Amino acid sequence: MTTVAIALYDGFDVLDATGPYDVLGSVPGVDVTFVARQAGPVHDGRKQCALVAEASFAELSTVDVVVVPGTIRKAPPEEVLLDWVRTAHRTTTWTTSVCSGALILGAAGLLEGRRATTHWTAIDRLAEYGATPEPDSRYVVDGKIVTSAGVSAGIDMALHLVARMHGTEMAQAVQLGLEYAPRPPFDAGTPATAPAEITQLVRSAIDAAG
Amino acid sequence: MTTVAIALYDGFDVLDATGPYDVLGSVPGVDVTFVARQAGPVHDGRKQCALVAEASFAELSTVDVVVVPGTIRKAPPEEVLLDWVRTAHRTTTWTTSVCSGALILGAAGLLEGRRATTHWTAIDRLAEYGATPEPDSRYVVDGKIVTSAGVSAGIDMALHLVARMHGTEMAQAVQLGLEYAPRPPFDAGTPATAPAEITQLVRSAIDAAG
Repeated sequence: MTTVAIALYDGFDVLDATGPYDVLGSVPGVDVTFVARQAGPVHDGRKQCALVAEASFAELSTVDVVVVPGTIRKAPPEEVLLDWVRTAHRTTTWTTSVCSGALILGAAGLLEGRRATTHWTAIDRLAEYGATPEPDSRYVVDGKIVTSAGVSAGIDMALHLVARMHGTEMAQAVQLGLEYAPRPPFDAGTPATAPAEITQLVRSAIDAAG
Repeated sequence: MTTVAIALYDGFDVLDATGPYDVLGSVPGVDVTFVARQAGPVHDGRKQCALVAEASFAELSTVDVVVVPGTIRKAPPEEVLLDWVRTAHRTTTWTTSVCSGALILGAAGLLEGRRATTHWTAIDRLAEYGATPEPDSRYVVDGKIVTSAGVSAGIDMALHLVARMHGTEMAQAVQLGLEYAPRPPFDAGTPATAPAEITQLVRSAIDAAG
């Protein structure tokens, strides 16, 4: 049995949490629990979706894998979340983040001296936490800490984790089960490929949010 | 304002619902509501995740876009869901499905004479509903009905929908916001590329489920 805890907090991004959930949860014998300050519904950044936390941080802090999703919000993470991340990290096999969740690992003090990545709009902020940014990586493995790029990168990261924990064949089976053969209709997924005016538009919108 | 309703029901697949949610919900002025038989938490097929429906089927059946996620469950869809799909479809601009959600559109009578796709393990079942399967398509647009392949294909489909409704530039902006430049660590996302023994393994597991 592999245990996974996905941390929820007010304003989290849904796909940051559910991409890794559907990948990791597809593996037989993997038990995933959504955790939050307290059990119950937790709203995302748009307040149009709520996921239910089944356990509180106090109830579950000893797991094999921690996943910390990101948020568009600019407010500093709550201390109760940072405390939980620090506590859980002591006994994890893997401590991971998706998107700007890396800034939460950073604020918890876990990225000091580590290589890491995050959403492209937040990449410059990693240095504030003593991390060396790797902007061209889809996900970065440094010791037992794995950080991934923006939102959808959590799916790629989770498949990598499945391979590390349960072997390549299991990861391939999960990929096939999710029919993960992506065909984005446009080639605008990174600032390197998106039109410059689109990049500027998204950066402005994200800077203005939260 | 564009209104979107994502149908939830006991046993739904989380990423089928949340992939399109994060794409469509990223567009300014798009209002997404999760709907179900009754408002409140709805559990997924693994019973490890619950999303909260904010409205009942009775409360919300007039929207621009309907999204019907799939499930690994083999039980026939509930009549209340089929009734809602039929009712909502009368006034939608787009009626869409992800993964085996196509079988729900089919059971509601919407795929008669249509081209369609679904999860690769369910593709042969489309003919039961009078549909012509397109197994090599990531998503299929036939009139106002859009069906997509397994799980992760809902993300590609939703980006296509954003482009149709709000233009190419908005779709590119959403793609960049989600940093959707996928790099699957393996090339096993379809039966055409996965090792044959992996395909057999997944087919057996899915046949045995539900």
